[in-house]
Amino acid sequence: MALLEDAASLALENSDIPDVDAIIVGSQTSDELAKVANLGTRLADVLGLSGVAAWRVENSSGSGSALLEAATLAVRSGHYSNVLAVGGEKMTDKPTPVTAKVLGRVLADTEIALGLTMPSLGAMVARMYMERYGLSRETLAMVPVKAHANGARNPLAHFRKEVDVGNVLSSPMVADPLRVFDCAPISDGAAAVVVTSQRTDVEIAGVGHGTDRIALADRRGNGLRATQLAAAMAYKDAGLTPEDVDFAELHDAFSILEIIDSEDVGLFPRGEGWKALEAGTTGRDGEMPINVSGGLKSRGHPVGATGLAQVAEVVWQLRGQAEGRQLDDVKVGLTQNIGGFGSNNLVTIMRRV
Amino acid sequence: MALLEDAASLALENSDIPDVDAIIVGSQTSDELAKVANLGTRLADVLGLSGVAAWRVENSSGSGSALLEAATLAVRSGHYSNVLAVGGEKMTDKPTPVTAKVLGRVLADTEIALGLTMPSLGAMVARMYMERYGLSRETLAMVPVKAHANGARNPLAHFRKEVDVGNVLSSPMVADPLRVFDCAPISDGAAAVVVTSQRTDVEIAGVGHGTDRIALADRRGNGLRATQLAAAMAYKDAGLTPEDVDFAELHDAFSILEIIDSEDVGLFPRGEGWKALEAGTTGRDGEMPINVSGGLKSRGHPVGATGLAQVAEVVWQLRGQAEGRQLDDVKVGLTQNIGGFGSNNLVTIMRRV
Repeated sequence: MALLEDAASLALENSDIPDVDAIIVGSQTSDELAKVANLGTRLADVLGLSGVAAWRVENSSGSGSALLEAATLAVRSGHYSNVLAVGGEKMTDKPTPVTAKVLGRVLADTEIALGLTMPSLGAMVARMYMERYGLSRETLAMVPVKAHANGARNPLAHFRKEVDVGNVLSSPMVADPLRVFDCAPISDGAAAVVVTSQRTDVEIAGVGHGTDRIALADRRGNGLRATQLAAAMAYKDAGLTPEDVDFAELHDAFSILEIIDSEDVGLFPRGEGWKALEAGTTGRDGEMPINVSGGLKSRGHPVGATGLAQVAEVVWQLRGQAEGRQLDDVKVGLTQNIGGFGSNNLVTIMRRV
Repeated sequence: MALLEDAASLALENSDIPDVDAIIVGSQTSDELAKVANLGTRLADVLGLSGVAAWRVENSSGSGSALLEAATLAVRSGHYSNVLAVGGEKMTDKPTPVTAKVLGRVLADTEIALGLTMPSLGAMVARMYMERYGLSRETLAMVPVKAHANGARNPLAHFRKEVDVGNVLSSPMVADPLRVFDCAPISDGAAAVVVTSQRTDVEIAGVGHGTDRIALADRRGNGLRATQLAAAMAYKDAGLTPEDVDFAELHDAFSILEIIDSEDVGLFPRGEGWKALEAGTTGRDGEMPINVSGGLKSRGHPVGATGLAQVAEVVWQLRGQAEGRQLDDVKVGLTQNIGGFGSNNLVTIMRRV
């Protein structure tokens, strides 16, 4: 609760919104890991906002974006004017195997029965992409290298230490070919924004949301279809195209995902995301900076907060408030957030107005 | 999942809506009791709807109404056209003390530390109301007697057996003055509706949502302020007043609550709800039938489904489809659903059009 309260208080302080009329809070594991219930009411209570409507939205690791979508639609409907959106997760209190077991329940029953885990699915996806499109293990390592370089400049990052390809390739194996440095950490954290019907300097231009079969074995096509559907919806909602996007925050829970995500949201053609990475296009000085915050790998991955932390980064960048990591002259930013192992994904597009 | 799937399939069959573009699912205890995660995606998967947006909304025992509110606002926003709203709970797999402990986490930390439980808070509220307004223990027993009489006519009710005042007063004490027959059961169940932007015969005219301090000791005033706020919002949203309401489904998790709820939503003056009960006004043949479905006490109280089961009852009554318990000539129905111990409450008003 303290994490949620801190983030919410900062968001309220930094906004010019005096009267919040609803709170939407998100967390994936609060019931089982933190053993705390009635989150929305509890948050209203500690913030001194008892009276206002309060919900919880839960969408596994996509909770942060899903609750922002809910807040956006609640405001667009005209029913609420100022919605405080807060996502957070307290994950480090339990031993990692316990946390991992709870997180792994989002997989298909058949996958759980087979002993499959998030990293093992990530490994299969990585192997397939590498074989199909010619990505090398060394180039894949450039994802966490970039993430740590970016995160080192972000005062709010979980890890603020640069690493090189050698560090990545010598880190312990998790699920071949993925190593420790290919995997986002288990983090504690929270993020909050206020969504308002008032005219402000940053607009939520588009929201999109898609799902796919839960079991990886049941899916067809390349990349993550749930992201592709979400991106199509978000671009349509915003009246924008991938060409309009200046930078993006993508869900790099595993290194390979950043590359696939960048293709799924249309920033690069299928199979060519790794070439953009290799060429430096997705670096902070490149044409399409990706995860300038440090991404899930370096900024951290408190699951219920992640999608909203991505949104907060985009808002800071669009406002010129990204201390130590500000991009020049950005007008449109995109976030992509994964729920489950890519089974429930969301895309949000924001624009400076 | 089977409960959710059954309810969802029935709702889809009974609607004329071919294309659902979002699913909003609700459950309070699915993480801890059923140990199932990624509910929205999972439901989309089993229904063959993979692709569409899918969220989970969780608001403790108010989840059913909260997810309906989310669905309503999502449709009003224009972002989605046809939202499948599904709430359910599987509560009987664990021993009752385990289930009760998980349910009790919605209370304030100070209350939990003192050993307070849902029924003990209900008992305090009952005692206060009885002393303040002159309600007798015998008249209070008429709430479950009415509930069981109504539930006996409802083919979907958990209990379909009539009881009399003597049965209630001789049932085991739970928390003085509340006895077993004053308390809703632990039930398994699910409910589903399709919310659409298309013109249909029943309109969701108003939704309202309010919160209050979590700890009972921190609250002020009579009745449940969260309900009073929710009712005011719902009436305003609908452009209606309590005089327009023909019948209501109220959250009678404890017998005393039905009486308090009926005052909070404005159907009777403060302190006079029990007089209406005693006079038969709230019976199925009275002027203001309350809980003609059997209410939580007799229809059952699968927490995440309850608010939506209330809504389903109102829709059936408005459509003339309430087999065995149909009210004559009803045009406007109201539901009131409690989350926590009255800390996060919702009111929904529906109208035949």
